[in-house]
Amino acid sequence: MRLRDVGEVGFLRSVQEALGGSGGAVRVGIGDDAAVIECPAGECLVLTCDAAVEGRHFRREWLSPSEIGGRAVRCALSDFAAMGARPAAVLLTLVVSPAEEATMAQVLVKGAAQAAEAYGARLVGGETVGNQGPLTLDVVAAGFVPVGRELRRSGAGVGDALLVSGTLGDSAAGLAALEAMGVRGDFEAVIARYIRPEPRTSLGALLAECEGVRAAIDISDGLVRDAGHLAEQSGVGIVVLAEALPLSPECRAAAERLSLDPLQWALAGGEDFELLFAADAERAAEIVELAQREAGVTVTVIGEVVEGRGVTVVREDGAEIVPPSIGWDQFAD
Amino acid sequence: MRLRDVGEVGFLRSVQEALGGSGGAVRVGIGDDAAVIECPAGECLVLTCDAAVEGRHFRREWLSPSEIGGRAVRCALSDFAAMGARPAAVLLTLVVSPAEEATMAQVLVKGAAQAAEAYGARLVGGETVGNQGPLTLDVVAAGFVPVGRELRRSGAGVGDALLVSGTLGDSAAGLAALEAMGVRGDFEAVIARYIRPEPRTSLGALLAECEGVRAAIDISDGLVRDAGHLAEQSGVGIVVLAEALPLSPECRAAAERLSLDPLQWALAGGEDFELLFAADAERAAEIVELAQREAGVTVTVIGEVVEGRGVTVVREDGAEIVPPSIGWDQFAD
Repeated sequence: MRLRDVGEVGFLRSVQEALGGSGGAVRVGIGDDAAVIECPAGECLVLTCDAAVEGRHFRREWLSPSEIGGRAVRCALSDFAAMGARPAAVLLTLVVSPAEEATMAQVLVKGAAQAAEAYGARLVGGETVGNQGPLTLDVVAAGFVPVGRELRRSGAGVGDALLVSGTLGDSAAGLAALEAMGVRGDFEAVIARYIRPEPRTSLGALLAECEGVRAAIDISDGLVRDAGHLAEQSGVGIVVLAEALPLSPECRAAAERLSLDPLQWALAGGEDFELLFAADAERAAEIVELAQREAGVTVTVIGEVVEGRGVTVVREDGAEIVPPSIGWDQFAD
Repeated sequence: MRLRDVGEVGFLRSVQEALGGSGGAVRVGIGDDAAVIECPAGECLVLTCDAAVEGRHFRREWLSPSEIGGRAVRCALSDFAAMGARPAAVLLTLVVSPAEEATMAQVLVKGAAQAAEAYGARLVGGETVGNQGPLTLDVVAAGFVPVGRELRRSGAGVGDALLVSGTLGDSAAGLAALEAMGVRGDFEAVIARYIRPEPRTSLGALLAECEGVRAAIDISDGLVRDAGHLAEQSGVGIVVLAEALPLSPECRAAAERLSLDPLQWALAGGEDFELLFAADAERAAEIVELAQREAGVTVTVIGEVVEGRGVTVVREDGAEIVPPSIGWDQFAD
């Protein structure tokens, strides 16, 4: 049955029945004019939103409806990780053609709800708009951080170490593999990183409580570009050591099979959704150890904060690498 | 200069410069991974979002870029009014073609920011996506309500009076006038109601503190349809008295000139963004007086809550009126 046959009220009722309403900190969930959520004492509200547009951010031949919903939520929650905040609630706006199957939209919303729950948040509302044009999702994530503990992009100081979580380039490798093959098939590990990115919310909350962590950002536009945001807002320069960049064996294998350079994926690929942060260099080793022990995440020192401005990528032999592009710009064609 | 020439970073910088960053309760505003806002002690977070899609919700020949941004925010804040909440922060997601003029997008964002400020909120962040297809806005509104004081759709009881703020049908009259004329011109009063709807945030906050107010909703889909939501979620029926509906002289005049029935606009037009609420019948007169005195808003008793289900519209002579349509369904073609 199509959405136009089910109708808006029927669709929202099915979503409400599948997801439930209030409970816990959620006083009012789906089905009223707005959601109402209890605020923990002594904490600040953290708010962000992230959109996903068919053709621009995803293709239906690569992602199932459930994955489309889940991925949009995971991407939005990554911004949370970068602030050191704990997500509490998610809203989903869905612009969808009335000619679509209602089950497609229901499964998409359920995928979004499940992704939210996997990171401690609840889907508490949103909006549906029937319209032709690309399937468009906008995810709002709301949550909390102890007052004064939020991790900002500003705050990195000269002499700080630059660290990154996980591995870089896998998502770009996955996307390149999908583009090369046209459909999903081989390269499952890197494709999974593209389809189900992992927002580093546990690590982010840990870093927010950790002395010596000075500034953070999540890598959505590509390492060089996002490091550039950190450098600009902190009024410093950043030097990245190419050989230090953590590349997964799967990323290297995909690059070899596709005859592409994994370093370029790591530098400019984007959508890694790893955390890039600056920390007191004397505490870097301790932070690496803490991240592994408390959050189960491998963190690597990949460079340092220097005087000046901009981002420089160098090899051990001192040669400078010029990234092929400056990463993802929303307004590039 | 077009957005693709300015680039994402350049566009966001221009927005940040125009709107400013942190200050007051906003600890972190535009320009970081997420916004951070102080939570008032003893209050709950209220969250909602509202989308506006070109062709579906607005046309560029009728609204200037500033009005497009302002209208989207005003519509989102109406949901706040219906919960009795005070808005604090707004996020704006903008899906826009890279071929658009950058000034158009800048003026749109500024229009959104000014509308937020007019109702005590700040534009603290959002998202831009470059994409072909219809210009799409999604506005997130976040704010606070004292614990336990939120106005829900459920809670109306048999014997309650049904009240509505302002006048009904003006927005639909404005839209009909625009459609009839093709361009803006005459009918300025009703067209203004369509272009610059007034979210009843002051009245909503007043009602939330007011004993005897049982349930509320804002009229976005049309009186009959939204009264239906209130009735369903409260498990009651609603009777509306046709002659009691508050119609403005401008709405009646537009109807006469266009040879249309103003009552149908009032019943099913939608986008009035007035508050519809149920209250203890014995306190209704007092609430009407309070709304006028404290919020400067005229409130009218238009019906009552009865046993049963659904919404019935009757004339004084007892004849039942069947609305021509059940209002606005997102998935209707």
